[in-house]
Amino acid sequence: MQQERANNRIEIHSKDNKTVKLAASLSGKKYRDALGAYLIEGPNLVREALQQGVRIKFIFTGAGALSQQKELEDILTLAENSDSAICVLSEDCFEKIATTGNSQGIAAMAEKPRWQPEDLFYDGSDVLVLDRIQDPGNLGTLLRTGEAAGFAGALLIKGGADPFGPKAVRAGAGCVFRFPLLLCESARDAMELLAKQRKKVWTAHMSGTPCYEADLAENTALVVGNEGNGADPIFLKETETVTVPMAGRTESLNAGMAAGILMYESMRQRAQGRAGER
Amino acid sequence: MQQERANNRIEIHSKDNKTVKLAASLSGKKYRDALGAYLIEGPNLVREALQQGVRIKFIFTGAGALSQQKELEDILTLAENSDSAICVLSEDCFEKIATTGNSQGIAAMAEKPRWQPEDLFYDGSDVLVLDRIQDPGNLGTLLRTGEAAGFAGALLIKGGADPFGPKAVRAGAGCVFRFPLLLCESARDAMELLAKQRKKVWTAHMSGTPCYEADLAENTALVVGNEGNGADPIFLKETETVTVPMAGRTESLNAGMAAGILMYESMRQRAQGRAGER
Repeated sequence: MQQERANNRIEIHSKDNKTVKLAASLSGKKYRDALGAYLIEGPNLVREALQQGVRIKFIFTGAGALSQQKELEDILTLAENSDSAICVLSEDCFEKIATTGNSQGIAAMAEKPRWQPEDLFYDGSDVLVLDRIQDPGNLGTLLRTGEAAGFAGALLIKGGADPFGPKAVRAGAGCVFRFPLLLCESARDAMELLAKQRKKVWTAHMSGTPCYEADLAENTALVVGNEGNGADPIFLKETETVTVPMAGRTESLNAGMAAGILMYESMRQRAQGRAGER
Repeated sequence: MQQERANNRIEIHSKDNKTVKLAASLSGKKYRDALGAYLIEGPNLVREALQQGVRIKFIFTGAGALSQQKELEDILTLAENSDSAICVLSEDCFEKIATTGNSQGIAAMAEKPRWQPEDLFYDGSDVLVLDRIQDPGNLGTLLRTGEAAGFAGALLIKGGADPFGPKAVRAGAGCVFRFPLLLCESARDAMELLAKQRKKVWTAHMSGTPCYEADLAENTALVVGNEGNGADPIFLKETETVTVPMAGRTESLNAGMAAGILMYESMRQRAQGRAGER
């Protein structure tokens, strides 16, 4: 457990080092929840996190990668102006932490953001409701698309992939840094919250009102169901359903694609509404 | 090379059997091209192919799977009314053919469809131009979305994934059975063809006319570039660019998602145009 300091950087050579073990534990949801922290991997995401003021406790870099990639030194310079501790790890230590194979020699342990209902719910805001999305890549892509389509944030129903897991963070391309997320215990709880916030709830479904005829412009909550089983029956029974019309003999769209098209139809209607008001 | 006939079914127990070897070779593009054939895997796709009149030379099923899954027997009954030869294979033979791990005991060797320019190009038709899409899953999803969005077919620029490869066929959910595809040698050739067919060409790009302000309704060719490098400079220089507007601090959308949103905006405009004419 050899530690030395040079330029305020901590060198770590032992895989038994406490900080290394802590960071490695973040590959498990249980530890992410207990520590209120998650891992960001790869130069692009770590740089973006630093630039956007994400609270980062530790930056980890591999000594070998650091000596070879000028880009990593630039990121450490950025980190030196933050409260992050910088740890330079031997390759075997770094490999113990890295999870995605895309860390390219750099990773960061970040504090999970804590969002409040008022971050998502305000007059006119549109929110995404993700009902137990199982695949972390799908989850990240849906959140990223939701942010791009001007949604205010997402309610996540308990039982899906963790948005702070490494694959979801990567697929989300950094949207977890700033896109407000609230966890809901159940579909019933979500419905109560949405009613209280006076959102008009639409559930994406194979059959329903064609999206171009549905009013998705403002105060909309769009429910996207689980890949295998679709949305909870509570949503299907108690809300209106909306669908992406299909030409040809296609039986269905990729579920993530359909959700993205619906989110963007909401954005288009919102923009058109604002243009109409002027 | 033991072959027996029972109920017009050919039983095959040897991995050296010529038909088994032929079918196994279809995992390689070279053989798919030479044979003008490809492999369809899994009960849903094989059933769909039979129902839609896809020309199937051989149906392969695993003897073990056949004895356990009633569904497979139903599909073979369908096949008996077609020109397909039905081969019941020992498990090791079937495994030699199956490529995706999703064949669930059934696969089919189908003739590649041969499309002509007039299948895609007619007055008012919208076509998709896929410029060397590398990932077979992306390619299949793009084709599937294009069909659903009412595009007439796709031009594929040489150098991308093969739409008849097993992963693309699966991601495309059967759209290769009926969605017209033409291969183009180069971006230059594609531009010449599109000019001759009087299509208005838009290239999807990070910066360009926001899609809600672009006329994508009719006679549109939408170019979608390679995942890594984007579209060929020829398209970027010689055509107008169109983009999906983004809210928030998202830097980019998943490229496949952006393409799907653009295709559907084209569909929306087309439908609106037709409604306006009435």
